[in-house]
Amino acid sequence: MIDSGIRLPWNRRLKLLIAYDGSSFSGWQRQKHDRTIQGEIEKCLSIMTNEDIFLHGAGRTDGGVHAEGMVAHFDCSSRIPDQNFMRGLNSMLPGAIRILDTNTCDPSFHARFSAIGKKYHYTVFTGKVHPPRIRLYSHHVTAPLNLATINSCLQAVVGTHDFSSFENSGSRDKSLTGGRGAVRTIYSARLLQQDKDCLVFEFIGDGFLKNMVRNLVGTILEAGRGKFDAEQFAAILAAKDRSSGGPTAPPQGLFLKQVFYQDRTLDHCISGKD
Amino acid sequence: MIDSGIRLPWNRRLKLLIAYDGSSFSGWQRQKHDRTIQGEIEKCLSIMTNEDIFLHGAGRTDGGVHAEGMVAHFDCSSRIPDQNFMRGLNSMLPGAIRILDTNTCDPSFHARFSAIGKKYHYTVFTGKVHPPRIRLYSHHVTAPLNLATINSCLQAVVGTHDFSSFENSGSRDKSLTGGRGAVRTIYSARLLQQDKDCLVFEFIGDGFLKNMVRNLVGTILEAGRGKFDAEQFAAILAAKDRSSGGPTAPPQGLFLKQVFYQDRTLDHCISGKD
Repeated sequence: MIDSGIRLPWNRRLKLLIAYDGSSFSGWQRQKHDRTIQGEIEKCLSIMTNEDIFLHGAGRTDGGVHAEGMVAHFDCSSRIPDQNFMRGLNSMLPGAIRILDTNTCDPSFHARFSAIGKKYHYTVFTGKVHPPRIRLYSHHVTAPLNLATINSCLQAVVGTHDFSSFENSGSRDKSLTGGRGAVRTIYSARLLQQDKDCLVFEFIGDGFLKNMVRNLVGTILEAGRGKFDAEQFAAILAAKDRSSGGPTAPPQGLFLKQVFYQDRTLDHCISGKD
Repeated sequence: MIDSGIRLPWNRRLKLLIAYDGSSFSGWQRQKHDRTIQGEIEKCLSIMTNEDIFLHGAGRTDGGVHAEGMVAHFDCSSRIPDQNFMRGLNSMLPGAIRILDTNTCDPSFHARFSAIGKKYHYTVFTGKVHPPRIRLYSHHVTAPLNLATINSCLQAVVGTHDFSSFENSGSRDKSLTGGRGAVRTIYSARLLQQDKDCLVFEFIGDGFLKNMVRNLVGTILEAGRGKFDAEQFAAILAAKDRSSGGPTAPPQGLFLKQVFYQDRTLDHCISGKD
């Protein structure tokens, strides 16, 4: 037998870095009848490896939500080199889903349980007419917004809180939350102004509940419109009751930008150095 | 009869400034069975005015080509105020088509015949993986490109030339070209580097033949890849023969950015001040 010099474990775990345009998918999670990101990638992986592949994502995203840095892992016994996995997947997947990187990783790595934080962006377009080119990647708000109020609300979000007021029901897998319930820590919540008609909300936290970013943005936009002030926003947060919160902002403005696995990367990102 | 103070002519001409994402349309021009930009807008205008409306565009764009500054005009006898036309159209049209401005204009204005120039952008993404978010708005080229060669080709394009080598056949309405055949004047042809992985080709000229920008870009990219040099590119231009030109670059990279009707605006744009 010729020794190729390449030693791949038979029980191999691969980590994928994924970008997708969620516009025409029913979200991340595999569904029987609908087209989903997880479903599309699993289908291609199963064809490539001739094995039943189960893809574990770092989290789920809803229909219409996008990602530029989703992470997922899967196990297989294939010897296909990492880069060929990437090329093969990108040649089979629709252009709306792209594999940005593929690496064989330690079998102890878990896309979801090893994650120590996530970064989300939510884009709001405030100009008069919503440009066709960004209509699927931003939420259009025509009412004038008070940025000082928005910034005060964002400051109130930072820290460790019970975010029940911003969690949609029927979603959380309570066996997996390690007993912390709806308590999450937001390391950074700020506004990045990209150009004069685009506001980008950035949230970095240790974890996010179902629809939490969209509920936060929807509620903060109500404050920005003058419906209530930052103090009342803080009271909504303290109420720990979804019915006191504002509306859910639409999915198309939301991007999962990054999943963190290393303290150093997360710290850099929070401090704005990354 | 109450005099409202508003006097609108019964034979009224309106000018529209239009942006569209051409991805899901069969181009600008009305077609019997396919969804087109002209067809969609005419349909809405006819409903609003209860008249048969014929929309005259400044030009046609192919399926998949986008616009951020298409101009069109139509005649009607409706007294609907300009801004209500805009609001009404934007409420009826799909989000992929937006009316940016509406003005009652002089009846001598003609979107096509009054135009003295046009500006097009063509975006090429040169990074390794084509980001899903820009896949419908850029052409992906992975081969290394020689920018010096590309710039030399662009310089050769500037000026008054017979562009037969870059004109697709069966297209030109020869009764309307004023005897100039395939001769067009390009005022400016240059590369705008937006970020490290995006090249934007900008062309400003008095007029463009069918597929001319896409044929120029497709051929210049072949030169950029090293298939031939700028001298050979100039020879292709001089050949006045489409069969000597390179391939047609795909539609999704192309944006009609602006149509010019005033010397001053055109001059500012050519000099880069606008």
